[in-house]
Amino acid sequence: MPTCTVTRRVHFNAAHRLHNPERSDEWNRTTFGVCNNPNYHGHNYELEVTVGGDIDPASGYVLDIAVLKTLVDERVAQILDHKNLNLDVPWFRDHIPSAENIAVFCWEQIATHLPAGRLVRVRLWETPRNYVDYRGE
Amino acid sequence: MPTCTVTRRVHFNAAHRLHNPERSDEWNRTTFGVCNNPNYHGHNYELEVTVGGDIDPASGYVLDIAVLKTLVDERVAQILDHKNLNLDVPWFRDHIPSAENIAVFCWEQIATHLPAGRLVRVRLWETPRNYVDYRGE
Amino acid sequence: MPTCTVTRRVHFNAAHRLHNPERSDEWNRTTFGVCNNPNYHGHNYELEVTVGGDIDPASGYVLDIAVLKTLVDERVAQILDHKNLNLDVPWFRDHIPSAENIAVFCWEQIATHLPAGRLVRVRLWETPRNYVDYRGE
Amino acid sequence: MPTCTVTRRVHFNAAHRLHNPERSDEWNRTTFGVCNNPNYHGHNYELEVTVGGDIDPASGYVLDIAVLKTLVDERVAQILDHKNLNLDVPWFRDHIPSAENIAVFCWEQIATHLPAGRLVRVRLWETPRNYVDYRGE
Amino acid sequence: MPTCTVTRRVHFNAAHRLHNPERSDEWNRTTFGVCNNPNYHGHNYELEVTVGGDIDPASGYVLDIAVLKTLVDERVAQILDHKNLNLDVPWFRDHIPSAENIAVFCWEQIATHLPAGRLVRVRLWETPRNYVDYRGE
Amino acid sequence: MPTCTVTRRVHFNAAHRLHNPERSDEWNRTTFGVCNNPNYHGHNYELEVTVGGDIDPASGYVLDIAVLKTLVDERVAQILDHKNLNLDVPWFRDHIPSAENIAVFCWEQIATHLPAGRLVRVRLWETPRNYVDYRGE
Repeated sequence: MPTCTVTRRVHFNAAHRLHNPERSDEWNRTTFGVCNNPNYHGHNYELEVTVGGDIDPASGYVLDIAVLKTLVDERVAQILDHKNLNLDVPWFRDHIPSAENIAVFCWEQIATHLPAGRLVRVRLWETPRNYVDYRGE
Repeated sequence: MPTCTVTRRVHFNAAHRLHNPERSDEWNRTTFGVCNNPNYHGHNYELEVTVGGDIDPASGYVLDIAVLKTLVDERVAQILDHKNLNLDVPWFRDHIPSAENIAVFCWEQIATHLPAGRLVRVRLWETPRNYVDYRGE
Repeated sequence: MPTCTVTRRVHFNAAHRLHNPERSDEWNRTTFGVCNNPNYHGHNYELEVTVGGDIDPASGYVLDIAVLKTLVDERVAQILDHKNLNLDVPWFRDHIPSAENIAVFCWEQIATHLPAGRLVRVRLWETPRNYVDYRGE
Repeated sequence: MPTCTVTRRVHFNAAHRLHNPERSDEWNRTTFGVCNNPNYHGHNYELEVTVGGDIDPASGYVLDIAVLKTLVDERVAQILDHKNLNLDVPWFRDHIPSAENIAVFCWEQIATHLPAGRLVRVRLWETPRNYVDYRGE
Repeated sequence: MPTCTVTRRVHFNAAHRLHNPERSDEWNRTTFGVCNNPNYHGHNYELEVTVGGDIDPASGYVLDIAVLKTLVDERVAQILDHKNLNLDVPWFRDHIPSAENIAVFCWEQIATHLPAGRLVRVRLWETPRNYVDYRGE
Repeated sequence: MPTCTVTRRVHFNAAHRLHNPERSDEWNRTTFGVCNNPNYHGHNYELEVTVGGDIDPASGYVLDIAVLKTLVDERVAQILDHKNLNLDVPWFRDHIPSAENIAVFCWEQIATHLPAGRLVRVRLWETPRNYVDYRGE
């Protein structure tokens, strides 16, 4: 039975600030530069969620892409879209909302709602010129 | 000798319907939703074909991309472009024309015309927001 | 008061066939080529709808883009998405479903639900390499 | 002497909130929906600046695109990039930072630094699916 | 009878150098900067050709897009693709191969092969971040 | 500690010619076709550089993307942008400037300036329709 992966892209936009309150202002400015702006800045994020598995001969599907879309909308987009990640999303009280950590957050939100081993990768585009890949490791 | 992969994108468009004639109409409507429309719908597909190997020191090529383009045109685009996958392409009499199965079809069409182990991946974009990867496994 | 236009892109996909039943099969094959396939083919269409007007000082809006999105979804996407234009959409009984005519259809569907003169242009991408503009003239 | 336009795209990202302090909270929530989030959200903006004129026979240029790039960087990107439009940019104390008004701001920043009549259009993409055009009228 | 425009995108790549032999080396370096490299540099160009007219009721076409594609391939792509504009294309002996002048060249190549008034605009993308529009004026 | 990769895209454009001086003109024409034009042709290249590692809990970064951008600008873009690869870049005296070899060159330029094992992949787009991946093997 052939095995493949299916990937769905989802859009959300949000404000954030990169700031570590346990470090000095000087460290934060040096480390984060313009991303440390105390008044926040923001991005249009594009999230790609990749799920793997056998192709079901009855449906031709690895996973109904509409089911995947709904899952990602409910578990990620409704929680992050049009939000301030630092202030509106509790998980980021303990994690800097860098692209890397947002990718980890998205993974955790989705992986627990899929059978073990099915989620293969999340890719998060922060701008059209940079992205992060996380594979749960 | 360095090893790398080269990837070529090719475009085709086609009509299809997701329908399993061995199941009830009810099952088909529930499983496939709007994709079960008996009158068909369609897509612009983008296919990425990835081939690997050593870089030939004489040419600097893993594989002449023009050769790969011709192969994909002849073996995939000329067979699927401006076609109804369900009615015009015999392979889909026995396979639901989901993105997953179209990717498997493309792999089989190309892999037999390349030396063993050279074809690495086919990626099929069904819309700008979802794609399938197949690696022949 | 400054005047500007706002544009919203909406996606739908559909099957179609270019065929004029009042002409001979020979004429149809010559005129439409592969697009005359009797079994249909299909596309992912991207529709851009452009609306103009004064910027409302209270809201900063020419038109709430969410309102425009809902209008286009209801009047265009729900009627054309995952459909066979020739068989499922009555307007195309009398019009060849070329990109040009689909653009005219989209205009007519939307213009009647906006104040006179507000709709400025519809742009319909049939593939990533060709599009049609219609301005209601 | 042939006349044409040259267009340069520039990227910036920013946080904003759509809120009219002269109206009630209820009006703001109804008018702006999720864009009224008091903690801000954000976008990757793409700005296209179009300048027209005769082609100089000596250089083949309407305007040196590098000069245009520098002008837009200094007058727009350095002022808006990685900023909170509501809090960090004085012009938006009196203007809702909607895409429409940001486009007007960009026009005013650039037009005064070009000979009269040279600036033809600014187009501001707020997301990959919606944009605003402003022509100084 | 509704009127609209159809646009076709075509790709070619070429080397060029911006240099005016009637001016001093100093003037050329100051005016053209890195684009004055005596050994040439190059681009992937994307050309959009826009043609207008009435929609023919029999075909639904303003112009068969396949005819337009063939015309642009023969009159532009075959002449410019994989060429050095300065050395291989006689027209550029007398014209600096700036994006502006390449757009004028494309217009002249195409306009003479269409009925008067049908060609509406050529848009030439020199990079994904800058383009030129020419309308034959 | 979660591990992920960050990827940065960088743009440069250049002229090149595919030609092996140790082979006959006939061999070169047959092997390279239009890419063998003695006067050169050119491309807009998009380079994606991918770096992996643990997410630093203090910064949320695998690697500061601004640091990566500066490294790639200095080690690749400033050396290749607006250049003739055959004539201006000594490394290509001994290597055909195919997309494959340009990817190897970019890897070597960057890998030596990162801790061992951090550079994961370079992807080089030669046109919007073909790209090469190299992983240092």
